Amino acid sequence: MSDKTTRQAQILEERYGMGHEPKDIIWNDQIEHMMSHRSVRRYLPDALPDGALETMVAAAQSASTSSNLHMWSVIAVTDPEMKSELYRTSGHGNPFIEVAPVFLLWVADQSRNNRISKANGGSAIVHDHLDAFVMATIDAALAAQNAALAAESLGLGTVYIGGMRNKSKEVADLLGLPDYAYVTFGMVVGYPAPEAQGRLRPRPSQDVVLHQNRYEADRASRIAAYEEPFKHFREDLCMKEKTFVGAVSSSANDLLSMDGRENLRSTVEGRGFKLR
Amino acid sequence: MSDKTTRQAQILEERYGMGHEPKDIIWNDQIEHMMSHRSVRRYLPDALPDGALETMVAAAQSASTSSNLHMWSVIAVTDPEMKSELYRTSGHGNPFIEVAPVFLLWVADQSRNNRISKANGGSAIVHDHLDAFVMATIDAALAAQNAALAAESLGLGTVYIGGMRNKSKEVADLLGLPDYAYVTFGMVVGYPAPEAQGRLRPRPSQDVVLHQNRYEADRASRIAAYEEPFKHFREDLCMKEKTFVGAVSSSANDLLSMDGRENLRSTVEGRGFKLR
Repeated sequence: MSDKTTRQAQILEERYGMGHEPKDIIWNDQIEHMMSHRSVRRYLPDALPDGALETMVAAAQSASTSSNLHMWSVIAVTDPEMKSELYRTSGHGNPFIEVAPVFLLWVADQSRNNRISKANGGSAIVHDHLDAFVMATIDAALAAQNAALAAESLGLGTVYIGGMRNKSKEVADLLGLPDYAYVTFGMVVGYPAPEAQGRLRPRPSQDVVLHQNRYEADRASRIAAYEEPFKHFREDLCMKEKTFVGAVSSSANDLLSMDGRENLRSTVEGRGFKLR
Repeated sequence: MSDKTTRQAQILEERYGMGHEPKDIIWNDQIEHMMSHRSVRRYLPDALPDGALETMVAAAQSASTSSNLHMWSVIAVTDPEMKSELYRTSGHGNPFIEVAPVFLLWVADQSRNNRISKANGGSAIVHDHLDAFVMATIDAALAAQNAALAAESLGLGTVYIGGMRNKSKEVADLLGLPDYAYVTFGMVVGYPAPEAQGRLRPRPSQDVVLHQNRYEADRASRIAAYEEPFKHFREDLCMKEKTFVGAVSSSANDLLSMDGRENLRSTVEGRGFKLR
């Protein structure tokens, strides 16, 4: 096998577990780049190369945005005190927020368009609906995903920090967010520490997520097949023994695991979103 | 200038408008690929190449997913009758949904994990909170963005169809979605028709969306600078005369423009999400 074929086979095996790889995957550099993604949780303190942030933002802005309305912003936190504050407020379990040079806060942002509309005498009544909250959330996510891929193409690592919604009010206050805006998630960016390498995190086989023409609900046996690669990955990293079904159940049943996120609705309502 | 430099300069100029390009952008194939994105609204009816869908799904699954919980599904609609039904229900203004060979519906999907948790005797109470709705929405968006980039790397075109939320209840019923799931958006996939080429859609300058350390609210003058590339792009495509501020205002003030999306909250609540 050529190096390319070997690399492809290895990525697919790591991603799906041996024997669960999808057939007929078309390979090119873009596909290999995306399929090689791993979240990085150990960083060097070294600064980003000149232009890296601007390159990430250019990629982010090139993503689709609903009706060309640009309903997102990103705050690049490089000030060590601000990073520490954010870490103390909401980042526990993620000490690398303080180590890495840049912490991006991705903001679902209707505030800009809300101000524009009201400055022009409008009511901005559309922003009082759940859909406006969803549109801004999706816009922020699409932009962020391009930025993550851009960072990785520059040899940098990233990890999404959903935990920034744990204390969403405190985070918004710290960052000085206006109304009609909330932090969807953070993203750490920096050079991966050498020990951050490792296997790719496995995913369930494609037939768990891919449906044809209509949604087919009963896929329990297919989910069961995911337990083996799930277990294998955790063993390799010496992680606590856990099954996928167990992980899903505790994430769904344990209110304490929400760690403040049960207040997200009151935060976003307090920030102007009426979610009608 | 080399071909590469010329191409880079052209992309940056189209994306930001002459004189508004960011400095210091680092260039590589991944960046060029993302920055060259355009939404395609004219398609050939030709089928996708073998493996293209699986390749898109593999890229989608390689995106980050919150806590490794895989809270999304995708329904690949290829059946012409189903495509026509979806078009008639919710796709007006987008007749290419019927022309292109594949219409993907991206589902923010807590139903799988909800069933797993309840089958194991849990309450799945976490899913009753707004955060669970947000997590699934973000998961779906990150996955979809990778899929879109994968499609483009295969020479295919895509366009997001947020309009699938216009009649979100009818769409969910047509697709047979279970509770705790809703369609975040559709995505048309196919070969672009030759006449679909053109300039890249310009974005506001980076300082409109990028903030340093804290959110800085007053950026009216920077938004004003966007009107020129916005106007230039529309003129080139013989689109109706409109300013960005005008477009923002009508999107925010005109309830009729929501075209059914004002009902999104009642749909998702009717589908189990309590959004607490």
